[in-house]
Amino acid sequence: MSNFRQSWSNGVERNQALQFLDMNLRGAGQVIFQNNPLTGLLFIIAVCWGAYAAHNIVVAVCAVLGLVVSTLTATLLDADRASQRQGLFGFNGFLVGVAVPTFLVVEPLMWFLLLIGASVSTVVMLAMSNVMKTWSVPALTSPFVLTTWFLVLAAYSFGHLPISSMGPPALPQPVAAAASSITLSANFLLSSWLKGPAQVFLINDAVAGVIVVIGLLVGSRWSAVFALIGSAVALLLAVLLGARAGRIDAGLYAFSPVLTAVALGSVFYKPSWRVALFALLGTIFTVIVQGALDAAIAPAGIPTFTAPFVTVTWLFLLPKANLQPHPHEALKDGILTNK
Amino acid sequence: MSNFRQSWSNGVERNQALQFLDMNLRGAGQVIFQNNPLTGLLFIIAVCWGAYAAHNIVVAVCAVLGLVVSTLTATLLDADRASQRQGLFGFNGFLVGVAVPTFLVVEPLMWFLLLIGASVSTVVMLAMSNVMKTWSVPALTSPFVLTTWFLVLAAYSFGHLPISSMGPPALPQPVAAAASSITLSANFLLSSWLKGPAQVFLINDAVAGVIVVIGLLVGSRWSAVFALIGSAVALLLAVLLGARAGRIDAGLYAFSPVLTAVALGSVFYKPSWRVALFALLGTIFTVIVQGALDAAIAPAGIPTFTAPFVTVTWLFLLPKANLQPHPHEALKDGILTNK
Amino acid sequence: MSNFRQSWSNGVERNQALQFLDMNLRGAGQVIFQNNPLTGLLFIIAVCWGAYAAHNIVVAVCAVLGLVVSTLTATLLDADRASQRQGLFGFNGFLVGVAVPTFLVVEPLMWFLLLIGASVSTVVMLAMSNVMKTWSVPALTSPFVLTTWFLVLAAYSFGHLPISSMGPPALPQPVAAAASSITLSANFLLSSWLKGPAQVFLINDAVAGVIVVIGLLVGSRWSAVFALIGSAVALLLAVLLGARAGRIDAGLYAFSPVLTAVALGSVFYKPSWRVALFALLGTIFTVIVQGALDAAIAPAGIPTFTAPFVTVTWLFLLPKANLQPHPHEALKDGILTNK
Repeated sequence: MSNFRQSWSNGVERNQALQFLDMNLRGAGQVIFQNNPLTGLLFIIAVCWGAYAAHNIVVAVCAVLGLVVSTLTATLLDADRASQRQGLFGFNGFLVGVAVPTFLVVEPLMWFLLLIGASVSTVVMLAMSNVMKTWSVPALTSPFVLTTWFLVLAAYSFGHLPISSMGPPALPQPVAAAASSITLSANFLLSSWLKGPAQVFLINDAVAGVIVVIGLLVGSRWSAVFALIGSAVALLLAVLLGARAGRIDAGLYAFSPVLTAVALGSVFYKPSWRVALFALLGTIFTVIVQGALDAAIAPAGIPTFTAPFVTVTWLFLLPKANLQPHPHEALKDGILTNK
Repeated sequence: MSNFRQSWSNGVERNQALQFLDMNLRGAGQVIFQNNPLTGLLFIIAVCWGAYAAHNIVVAVCAVLGLVVSTLTATLLDADRASQRQGLFGFNGFLVGVAVPTFLVVEPLMWFLLLIGASVSTVVMLAMSNVMKTWSVPALTSPFVLTTWFLVLAAYSFGHLPISSMGPPALPQPVAAAASSITLSANFLLSSWLKGPAQVFLINDAVAGVIVVIGLLVGSRWSAVFALIGSAVALLLAVLLGARAGRIDAGLYAFSPVLTAVALGSVFYKPSWRVALFALLGTIFTVIVQGALDAAIAPAGIPTFTAPFVTVTWLFLLPKANLQPHPHEALKDGILTNK
Repeated sequence: MSNFRQSWSNGVERNQALQFLDMNLRGAGQVIFQNNPLTGLLFIIAVCWGAYAAHNIVVAVCAVLGLVVSTLTATLLDADRASQRQGLFGFNGFLVGVAVPTFLVVEPLMWFLLLIGASVSTVVMLAMSNVMKTWSVPALTSPFVLTTWFLVLAAYSFGHLPISSMGPPALPQPVAAAASSITLSANFLLSSWLKGPAQVFLINDAVAGVIVVIGLLVGSRWSAVFALIGSAVALLLAVLLGARAGRIDAGLYAFSPVLTAVALGSVFYKPSWRVALFALLGTIFTVIVQGALDAAIAPAGIPTFTAPFVTVTWLFLLPKANLQPHPHEALKDGILTNK
């Protein structure tokens, strides 16, 4: 393993094509903060598996396309080279590529929208990084959320971009008792728990969740642990609060908390008991914010994507002066150091 | 009086329990910018009176609980000690504590939501203060507004958090002529005028308003004057513009203007005729923004809380370079000076 | 011409009244970034023509009133003198003045709302400029958008501010096939293309568009070229994507892209092929964001104004470190240099 890693590193330094491949794999890995090409490969495999299981293989094609286009855009814009090499301009485009064919019908103009969106996601990454750098906080997946909100919202205004599965726009309604009734079988709990990490990539599949966790294990053991804890906390809390059973079952209450738990617990703060408690509070609040944003966004008829994670993690990173922040690699190098 | 003040100060320096009590009383006082324990006590009494008058005494219990939890959270997070001592981490939690049992049914999970919310309000205070410090502007009650929006919006998604009195979500509708018809009796005017200061604490009661104004008088005569002027201006303007009579009657057009008038007229700028005119413009615009946000937020089915005050006061403080800003105590000490 | 320009300059330096006139004319010109009194005069003529053609001449009166009031407010607030001289405190008030009588009924209280709004637009300009200065980015027309959103939204809450032409609030609906069916005649294309620049001033008239383009030509040839390209790109893309025919016809898909194209292509970046491609990407994305915001804002029942332009241009200016930014005059002088 260590030998392979060494020869991969050597190859990447000498071969332009291999370097571009490495950059893209790391881009996929950065969806959950892993600057690791093997993790990225496993995440791509998870997306392929999910697309295959949903009989919608085009999603995997679009994901890779989004990844490559956003990475290339960063090169064309001459963005900070170190950040490019770490895959920091790929993860948003990768997620744009997953989301667009999931919610819109795959017609010719969808490809056009996807290309524009993936490219713009890199511009938005540079913009948001520049803004958030003011407080030493990363952009997280805000470029994906913003860009994709614009793309899928636009489908309501353009007749040639038909919607496949989102909406319809509706005023929020309190949950009926029947809708939140759940039989808590071991099967339900295990499946819902594992779908949390998978839904980070918009995949409704437990096997894909296992592949994602293996990918995390390769990159960082603590990240894998916090992902599993985050998903478990979210699952139990959503059941306790009486969320809609269908949404819990699909892992839709767990994917943002997974990201919050990993970010606060293992990436941006130096792990400790105090930080673990802080991350737990953030994870719990992410479940509440997920419920809140689901209601607030209902009249627009679009998904929240990872907005609950971004919102809570920003709020919990911004005061970091008092929690001995561990400077994330990406931030140290700076996304716009040549400014 | 002066003797009592001296012995209180001495006691606070020597006795930990008294110091904690002092911190919490000041926290209540900071809801309207008063770093004064006696003012805080009077504000708490106003909330108790309001809860008693509305046959809903649990609101007062929750308010104190929110105050204590958010203050304790600041200690646990090791926030700037001087800011803690001034009560700057208590006022948002106090308001969270008033709001949650006012809009949601008091069931076991409401207490859980309240504890999480009060605690998170301190994290959000640290976050927003860090952001707004960039332009030497305070966070105001934005942590209360943001946190409580998430808490009460979430009730639409969670079946075990039933709503008692807000919504239902609806598209905005122009005001029918009948709804804005008012008989301007002296009684109506007096009651509505005094309810303005009370509604800062979500209390629909004129006596509570009188207690709030007395609290302000204890802290700062100018603040009391601007609060009464702000409420009067808002009342007259809302009548003139034809707002819904029920909302005017309840003081719902006046509480944000009260805060704007106090903030711009007596706290963050050095009082002068020029500043008074500027504060008047801000107070008038707050009434307009109250009407605007009421319409914009209607589809979500939640209250605006003090968002009109926060929005307008930020907009009117941000250019302060040109109006000889008087550095507010809180800002001088900095909320995160140990950064 | 050059002689006239020289004597105008001399007159402006010596005569207070002429200086005030010059400041206001430049204010009108700054709606599309032109610090040029003759351009401003032509823009005012375009608004007069549009108001005349729409049998609504009061719109022109309100526009000039908004311009003068917002410019005067800057003087009263003692804002940076160089920025005042360049007309940077007039363009938002000018647009507020066009918008209010276009969407609300012209009744006595509308004039009150307009005066308050024009005055506040200058406060918001100072506030937003102070915020955006942090990243060396201008406020653009965000003060107009924010202020006017508040003004027209408030009309839903105040019975004495009747609405003439906006809304009604509605949940977004996908476009029916019939609604996007268009017969692409040369006449349709030419008229819609020229209405783009006119709609920057909320005018639905091709002749006014020609006057606006002439105004741009006087100020900067490149700005005129990019305005015409931006309008053409937006028109073709909106047709291609199947937008509602009535909105395309009125130029409503083109005015924000016109501004984005001029801003990115000729004002804030040094023109080059690379910048032209970047501006093209921004212009295309502005059309998508226009469709997105039209849907998102539908439940509130108000227009998007230039929010699509502001959003995209901010996102495309924020990373400017890497694209050799050309410091805009306004930014160099700073809006709040005396801070």
